[in-house]
Amino acid sequence: MSGNAFWQQLETGTVGESVSLDEALAQIPWNADGLIPAIAQQYDTGEVLMLAWMNREALEETLDRERVCYWSRSRQQLWRKGESSGQVQVLKEMRLDCDGDTLLLLVDQTGPACHTGRRGCFYNLVQGDRLVVDKPVLIDPESLYGK
Amino acid sequence: MSGNAFWQQLETGTVGESVSLDEALAQIPWNADGLIPAIAQQYDTGEVLMLAWMNREALEETLDRERVCYWSRSRQQLWRKGESSGQVQVLKEMRLDCDGDTLLLLVDQTGPACHTGRRGCFYNLVQGDRLVVDKPVLIDPESLYGK
Repeated sequence: MSGNAFWQQLETGTVGESVSLDEALAQIPWNADGLIPAIAQQYDTGEVLMLAWMNREALEETLDRERVCYWSRSRQQLWRKGESSGQVQVLKEMRLDCDGDTLLLLVDQTGPACHTGRRGCFYNLVQGDRLVVDKPVLIDPESLYGK
Repeated sequence: MSGNAFWQQLETGTVGESVSLDEALAQIPWNADGLIPAIAQQYDTGEVLMLAWMNREALEETLDRERVCYWSRSRQQLWRKGESSGQVQVLKEMRLDCDGDTLLLLVDQTGPACHTGRRGCFYNLVQGDRLVVDKPVLIDPESLYGK
């Protein structure tokens, strides 16, 4: 079955229908770099914290340990979120979208998710012809990363 | 100023600091296809509805008309969300993340956001070793798209 047909069979699925997770992971249309975007959302408040990327190894580790692990595109290595800062993301729920090419992670984020020391990464708000910082730094990043 | 330096100057910004939106759009690190991922979130409930992609033209049209317009990677054309289905997204707020490479759109979604007729696209839940459909189809897609 082609990846496309695999996701299409789920499109008409009624609530409770399921497929093997192993088969689903094999049918993810990874991008040219072998990655899939993952949105992290705080599970109880609904705040969208960040978007990062996973390869298959990061995805499987995340499910296995219930701690979120991404693939760092800049460092080209596994990025165990919070490993150096302590600001971990505990995985509460993982979802795939209708064509299997995006992940939604419901997480419990300890402290700031953003490397700037803000709770989330989306602090740049479009306002008219300006882009305005509208979220405060909660923790000095120097204290998070010991720079 | 390099794109990186541009976003870094905002990292330490206090609430209310701003830059020109035109300059910010020029500094977005578009991917190799000239696109940026855009997360659509229902503005009042916080539900993450979908992730799609924008090129610069789609982004500018979205800001201009306050109706969300994506770039369809499969059809390789502007995708005015809801144009054929009527299920439009009114833009309430647009945000950029810390390194300027992801958009968060707060929207007011009319009816289903997903082409399957579900409210959102993230209806495939990982449960143990299964991937389970856990959201109902609200409207038969055939009635949305007149197939």
